Amino acid sequence: MSDQQRNQRHTQRMQRKKELIDAGVARADKDKGLILINTGNGKGKSSAGFGVVARALGHGMTVAVVQFIKGSFQTGEENFFRRFPDEVEYHVMGEGFTWDTQNRERDIATAMVAWEKAEQLLSNPTIDLVLLDELNIALKMGYIPLDRVLAALRDKPEMQHVVITGRGAKDELVEIADTVTEMREIKHAYKAGIRAQKGVEL
Amino acid sequence: MSDQQRNQRHTQRMQRKKELIDAGVARADKDKGLILINTGNGKGKSSAGFGVVARALGHGMTVAVVQFIKGSFQTGEENFFRRFPDEVEYHVMGEGFTWDTQNRERDIATAMVAWEKAEQLLSNPTIDLVLLDELNIALKMGYIPLDRVLAALRDKPEMQHVVITGRGAKDELVEIADTVTEMREIKHAYKAGIRAQKGVEL
Repeated sequence: MSDQQRNQRHTQRMQRKKELIDAGVARADKDKGLILINTGNGKGKSSAGFGVVARALGHGMTVAVVQFIKGSFQTGEENFFRRFPDEVEYHVMGEGFTWDTQNRERDIATAMVAWEKAEQLLSNPTIDLVLLDELNIALKMGYIPLDRVLAALRDKPEMQHVVITGRGAKDELVEIADTVTEMREIKHAYKAGIRAQKGVEL
Repeated sequence: MSDQQRNQRHTQRMQRKKELIDAGVARADKDKGLILINTGNGKGKSSAGFGVVARALGHGMTVAVVQFIKGSFQTGEENFFRRFPDEVEYHVMGEGFTWDTQNRERDIATAMVAWEKAEQLLSNPTIDLVLLDELNIALKMGYIPLDRVLAALRDKPEMQHVVITGRGAKDELVEIADTVTEMREIKHAYKAGIRAQKGVEL
């Protein structure tokens, strides 16, 4: 096949692809506040949530973050997004991972304080995007009643976007979400003896 | 089982978990610039890359971004991260998705300009993190020679981190990466007729 033929075929294939994509775009004409879930055992669940925060800020939107489980060590994303107090309301409610505290009652109390903050945010239409980081873990541990979470999501402002992260997303949450991604671990540096690297994982 | 028993069991289980995790942490004692790949057909590949950018900036690191394919529309993350020209070097090299241009030769030329910029960044030890957004697509389309990408990654500064995104990551890339995550689509709003939402997907 000559270069010219290859280029022609490429153009034809891309024209067909463009037609299909344009038709899809024409069909997808609804606007809606989305519920996104990032789950699975791989990396990138929280990172993707914080990437969406950056994207929303780039459009002049207002953002609120609640971190449910982390909190015993200062993380890079917290350092960074706290630079913008007028645009990002940032709450870190957890007291470290649950195997650090080893105290179920205290963990439940902490999780419920975080959840009540989240409920306020989910009923505030002036906040365009709410990131509920590691909420899935708190749900999986049974620290927060699933019913209350489902009710708050059902009643949220129509155009508000919500991102929920953490492994082990509950089926009922997946059910009411608009977009659900499973982050699957294919390979992890940690297993090769490399500790969590500042700026990448912390 | 009484509440007290349940709490005791929880404490014991978490103590065992903490021992396991602490032992893992003790084993993982290497520091290294990581190569991370976010691939798969689900959402969150680029978002997770930009989340890592935010995290790195929170640690005072310097960052460079090359966007290989996007570029015909202004995206939120570009708006946002261009606010920090002293900390983030931002290059958008693509001219829209390849089915918009429908011109293979021009796409190759554009991709190679972007790649040459990436090569400069990957040999600059003053840059702590390089995000090569949608590089996988450019590789999959055959626009950039895989050998050159592998060579640049092998020779990069030892402590520099690199994040590569895009579906269809090449096996050879997965091979030399430290951490690879597959974003799997479980559910996507677009298929329910909801168009890409500003702040979340754009």
